[in-house]
Amino acid sequence: MNNQLSLDRIYQAAFALKDVARKTDLIYSPHFSGKNQVFFKTENLQVTGSFKLRGAYFKISRLTDEEKAAGIVACSAGNHAQGVALSAQRMGIKATICMPDGAPISKVQATKSYGAEVALVKGAYDDAYQYACKLQEEAHATFIHPFDDPDVIAGQGTIGLEILDQLSDVDAIVVPIGGGGLISGVAFAAKSLKPDIKIYGVQAKEAASMADSLKYDEQVTLKTVNTFADGIAVKHPGDLTFELIKDYVDEVVTVTEDEIAVAILALIEKQKLIAEGAGAVSLAAVMADKIPVEGKNVVCIVSGGNIDVNILSRVITRGLVTSGRNATLQIALEDKPGQLVDVATIIASCGANVTGVHYGHSDPNTAVTSCVLTLEIETRDFEQLEQIRQTLTDQGFNLVQ
Amino acid sequence: MNNQLSLDRIYQAAFALKDVARKTDLIYSPHFSGKNQVFFKTENLQVTGSFKLRGAYFKISRLTDEEKAAGIVACSAGNHAQGVALSAQRMGIKATICMPDGAPISKVQATKSYGAEVALVKGAYDDAYQYACKLQEEAHATFIHPFDDPDVIAGQGTIGLEILDQLSDVDAIVVPIGGGGLISGVAFAAKSLKPDIKIYGVQAKEAASMADSLKYDEQVTLKTVNTFADGIAVKHPGDLTFELIKDYVDEVVTVTEDEIAVAILALIEKQKLIAEGAGAVSLAAVMADKIPVEGKNVVCIVSGGNIDVNILSRVITRGLVTSGRNATLQIALEDKPGQLVDVATIIASCGANVTGVHYGHSDPNTAVTSCVLTLEIETRDFEQLEQIRQTLTDQGFNLVQ
Repeated sequence: MNNQLSLDRIYQAAFALKDVARKTDLIYSPHFSGKNQVFFKTENLQVTGSFKLRGAYFKISRLTDEEKAAGIVACSAGNHAQGVALSAQRMGIKATICMPDGAPISKVQATKSYGAEVALVKGAYDDAYQYACKLQEEAHATFIHPFDDPDVIAGQGTIGLEILDQLSDVDAIVVPIGGGGLISGVAFAAKSLKPDIKIYGVQAKEAASMADSLKYDEQVTLKTVNTFADGIAVKHPGDLTFELIKDYVDEVVTVTEDEIAVAILALIEKQKLIAEGAGAVSLAAVMADKIPVEGKNVVCIVSGGNIDVNILSRVITRGLVTSGRNATLQIALEDKPGQLVDVATIIASCGANVTGVHYGHSDPNTAVTSCVLTLEIETRDFEQLEQIRQTLTDQGFNLVQ
Repeated sequence: MNNQLSLDRIYQAAFALKDVARKTDLIYSPHFSGKNQVFFKTENLQVTGSFKLRGAYFKISRLTDEEKAAGIVACSAGNHAQGVALSAQRMGIKATICMPDGAPISKVQATKSYGAEVALVKGAYDDAYQYACKLQEEAHATFIHPFDDPDVIAGQGTIGLEILDQLSDVDAIVVPIGGGGLISGVAFAAKSLKPDIKIYGVQAKEAASMADSLKYDEQVTLKTVNTFADGIAVKHPGDLTFELIKDYVDEVVTVTEDEIAVAILALIEKQKLIAEGAGAVSLAAVMADKIPVEGKNVVCIVSGGNIDVNILSRVITRGLVTSGRNATLQIALEDKPGQLVDVATIIASCGANVTGVHYGHSDPNTAVTSCVLTLEIETRDFEQLEQIRQTLTDQGFNLVQ
């Protein structure tokens, strides 16, 4: 019975989480609505920056006093680490979190800030996991699995209850999938209360372990996962989550890295929300029309917002380039005075901003007497960019790129 | 009587806004709490991305049928434009918004997307304003002032009602000030219901027209305003708002551009929220200890999130540099093979990422036989950066910068 997920247990989780987790806002988005009505369940605004707190806290709250006294161990490079650490702190339990030593310093610091002991393990996630198992055995501690546990799944399922409470006429919920804990809980809760609701899962194409497992009807293990959505970069689905997804999820689709980046930028510009890669896949799937939700009330779960700022910066830059608002021009110039003035004048007259200049002779493809000017410019849109290119060409400049 | 602000009128505004504006979430921030308890009133998550919708909608809703039929005119390069446009669309009124032609294309497009006619006027805000007055007279239309109007102020005041409802034991509210409409409404509402509450205003140091006006006890006009917080770049306070602020606001402080940038980055990293410059000044003032709120329950109003992504990108980059996570190294190299390999090896062994390389002879300060290598690197923190510098120096490399 202890391994059985039930609606009862999800309601228990909701009660346990009352003073710990935020009932995050469900935000209607006029911008993304049109063919359908789009709402965002903003778990990126959850305490610790992701939904993971829910499952971790409920799981830990149900340990016996002996188990609590022996402490807990977890292995995670990210959101689960913070969820476990804060939960343990709230309950006064000793927590040791094993993290690969390449984990972003921001996530290590956040985990430590919740009072957990962090063991940085040389290598990748698997090495950290091995070390966590060793620690757990030695200390007779409890290992808190990030997804394949009915209590963890029940905790995540509370999101399903909240969505139905916040929007009773919801038709579909779109949920990111890594190990499958979030969607298992949400699908179970939502379909138990409203059987005709549709539940769609989304994975990164480069880490599609659950999608592939469904395709082959058996759990596959990916050799590598290669996505910047690190929160869902899982090589092998859970046993319990695989079964639950087969029973309760209508379809699992995948999105590309570019589709994820575009969704992150769109959430920033249109919703003023920071999503991490994993958190943006649900919107990415809707934006790329991968899910049959026309005319429906669709909730996209934005599962987390813990994105490294260096990566965020690159995502924004890429998004600016793909939308015509940042560009690099290369112009082959004759090596004579005044050329730079002329180019700069043209760009200024078109109303664009120069943000970087490089002027060099080093390109072996150009003549000895010429050089290449590389300009980074900020533009308003593709139209303005094209106007600049055209004007430069009209004035006799030779655009290399 | 029509020019009199009253609590009654603010309650009327709240009722009028019921199905138009979101009751935005009040989010407790464990991260920013410590010396005090910090909460964010997230008007950046308001429809149109800022609080301006509230005042504009209520004002327009109170026009007579004749006035509505004659249409409305407004002048704004930003949030007010979108608030007026959406309000007019909801009520089926013709709206013309005059914007300076240098306004970001994203704001022009957003305003158009709400069905308003946009008149792009050559020049700055003042030119657009002159043109708006001309249009308004010709069409006998109603000019919707962005802040100096009791109905507009009453609309913004609904935020005060919501805060008191969401956190009845709030001690202080920190509010951005441009023209003063937001803080006038919030202060009036909050102090009418809870006289001992403290209301603090915050301006950008480079656009401190209200702070200066209070100092000289008369309305001053700034010659220039020079802040990237364009939402509060106002040269002259309103008449009505000046009087209300004198009566109801406890103190007005200013923050620097760097303090605003740091607050924007902090909101991204810790709260997963996008704030525009104007929206971040309240947190900036709390972070820089400019307000006496120790031990208090403090609400910072994050007034809007409409920041141009190019500017956002620069704010993030600057924040990364000032926090040791992005750096540029310049190394004077002897011009012989293998030097680049050695440098790159050292950086890799320290665990940092190279994101840009420039290798040139052009610096006149270096010897003919040497050249300068400029590297952009991503680091985890200042400690790692210092380790890289030290290792390079220890290995005999000459760091120019």
